[in-house]
Amino acid sequence: MENQQRLDRTRRAMEAGRLDALAVRLPENVLLLSGFWPMIGASVLVFPREGRPVCAIPHCYESEASLSLWEAEPAYYRYGVLDAPEPGLAIRNVLSRAARGKGWKRVGYEADFEVVAPSWNSGEAQVPAAGTREIYRAAFDGAELVDVSSLLQAQRRGKTAYEIAKIRIASEISSIGLEAFERMVDVGASGVELAAGVEREIMARGTGFKGAFRVRAYAQVAVGPEESAIGYRPNEVSTVRRLESGDVALLELGVVADGYWADRTRVRVAGEPAQEQWKVFDAVRRAQQAAAAAIRPGVSGAAVDEAARSIIRDAGYGDFFRHITGHGVGFAYHESLPKLAPGETGPLEEGMITSVEPGVYFKPCGGFRIEDDVLVTGNGSETLGPFRNSLT
Amino acid sequence: MENQQRLDRTRRAMEAGRLDALAVRLPENVLLLSGFWPMIGASVLVFPREGRPVCAIPHCYESEASLSLWEAEPAYYRYGVLDAPEPGLAIRNVLSRAARGKGWKRVGYEADFEVVAPSWNSGEAQVPAAGTREIYRAAFDGAELVDVSSLLQAQRRGKTAYEIAKIRIASEISSIGLEAFERMVDVGASGVELAAGVEREIMARGTGFKGAFRVRAYAQVAVGPEESAIGYRPNEVSTVRRLESGDVALLELGVVADGYWADRTRVRVAGEPAQEQWKVFDAVRRAQQAAAAAIRPGVSGAAVDEAARSIIRDAGYGDFFRHITGHGVGFAYHESLPKLAPGETGPLEEGMITSVEPGVYFKPCGGFRIEDDVLVTGNGSETLGPFRNSLT
Repeated sequence: MENQQRLDRTRRAMEAGRLDALAVRLPENVLLLSGFWPMIGASVLVFPREGRPVCAIPHCYESEASLSLWEAEPAYYRYGVLDAPEPGLAIRNVLSRAARGKGWKRVGYEADFEVVAPSWNSGEAQVPAAGTREIYRAAFDGAELVDVSSLLQAQRRGKTAYEIAKIRIASEISSIGLEAFERMVDVGASGVELAAGVEREIMARGTGFKGAFRVRAYAQVAVGPEESAIGYRPNEVSTVRRLESGDVALLELGVVADGYWADRTRVRVAGEPAQEQWKVFDAVRRAQQAAAAAIRPGVSGAAVDEAARSIIRDAGYGDFFRHITGHGVGFAYHESLPKLAPGETGPLEEGMITSVEPGVYFKPCGGFRIEDDVLVTGNGSETLGPFRNSLT
Repeated sequence: MENQQRLDRTRRAMEAGRLDALAVRLPENVLLLSGFWPMIGASVLVFPREGRPVCAIPHCYESEASLSLWEAEPAYYRYGVLDAPEPGLAIRNVLSRAARGKGWKRVGYEADFEVVAPSWNSGEAQVPAAGTREIYRAAFDGAELVDVSSLLQAQRRGKTAYEIAKIRIASEISSIGLEAFERMVDVGASGVELAAGVEREIMARGTGFKGAFRVRAYAQVAVGPEESAIGYRPNEVSTVRRLESGDVALLELGVVADGYWADRTRVRVAGEPAQEQWKVFDAVRRAQQAAAAAIRPGVSGAAVDEAARSIIRDAGYGDFFRHITGHGVGFAYHESLPKLAPGETGPLEEGMITSVEPGVYFKPCGGFRIEDDVLVTGNGSETLGPFRNSLT
């Protein structure tokens, strides 16, 4: 068993929640509990507190599933071909067989994942909605359906050694994109050219890296003060605007490798930076280093945030650092916990992974942010997939 | 008003369904009814049967929203910054204000979109789940919440002139990727290199094409008989396997431009094709042309399917064409209606858009599929973004 720790933890949480089984359908949660990252959203895992899990999987993904499933028994059903049964019915049959004779009283399901990571082909994310609840109701006849969204989110907060190794690979692959960005930023390049180039390098060179099988990047590059210094927004917008001398290029980068995520940011200036750009860059870089250095088990999210914020404040840019310092990452591009922000008193714990991403945004200087993902270790922190920062 | 036809149609459907208002949150449905394609999923549109719609939008996307909203009044709320309210509360306040004093009895919402197209940054698709229902319950105090998933799906089946023009642009942009694929397929290229290259060209060259603002591609390239002739699966899997002489390269390509989708497939052989590969390619190409030629208002999906299937059957490959001939496309990469398949008696209607994608898959020949999106016109059909097919 490659991630027994995760399975044990989850079963303990199920016991505490008096849950006889979980039924999960979001690709990220199927991955969490089975090792298999479904390529489309029509795979459903039944994870009982006692006994072997069963995973309903479209027959055409048998080779991928058989390579990655840990303990779950695959139940392949015919899918996408003319003589296939209706998928809902096929899934329901697999679930019914898994539940038969077990006398389950309470079955947990994902009722409240408002923000979900993508299935592999992110063009069509799968989410559990009314149709899925009907399947569960019919398959787990008589059992109470319990929303276990928060149980699963809590499970995801702390990463196991297995998962940390996977997320580290995603971070290392993201560095391929940071290197490409460094190389490509120049006067005349457009935001979409830079974003497209970074994504291309990551898919073409990251696939196969340390065994990574399915790799994809989501890059956005804001160019110049108008695009980069809107104030702060969760996603930059890459456009056809081209870099002029002295313009900032701000890269926001999400990378997924076999279901595990990295979240990075780098900033460059095309041509010769102005003196104030150097000054802002220096403050942001020092703030980011200070926050990473402050991370260890037991310290609060607020204290780490303040480690970054005080440096930016002292440099005179406090009013332009408007957002939080970091958020959880790993099973998704953005996870809600931990959170590095003013007022966050909860202590960091070993095995958490957080982004560390202070930023300063004002015109005409531009938007500056530096972001890496940092693991809380037993006695301190480790920056995953380390890669240099340089403004030019 | 740029898409009055859509708004009128929807209000008629609401009247028939005795719905006082709709509340929609999926980016694709916000786009459908407001013209604005939210960049993250925290925009919610209230669309009343009478009166002006209101759209809750994070403040940092004001410039994009103000350029694209039709009639809806934007209600910007502070988002992502330290002094922002909790987003659920901010959205709830906007919705409450929109509903105040209106006496709405029945409000429709998206309870059952199991498969959803992505928000722009597909890394995190947004879906309405339990949290959203709570917001609606609180904001539309006293009103019955009605699942209008099928009403919205029915709305999306037939496209308006405005929407057809948008989807045509996505199709034309997809041809940029088909051209790049043609150029790049060669002995020694790997599946991930080809996929990454196609995606890069589409983002870098497609953004700005006929005003397209946000463009992204999802490419998969299966290489050689083992990868391409699994039987058929909805998504190919690009790997590091490199093309050898005589290998098939099968490109599956989804393209989104400002929220509107194209779905294309091309097949090439590296080096010199075998005689049977030519024969299979010829049958698939003729089948695809025959299906497109059969499309017109009033004809059944089954008849169009048979136009393709009979040609492949007559060529001796009927057992290797295992899937349907086509599906709806436009507001998503895959829509459920129309459907070109055996047994589909429902008539095609003017304004529908369907993929046409016959395929033949067997070893050692490989997997062959050709796919274009075809519009049902007043008296026939039009292939969107036409682009040649050639095996080498």
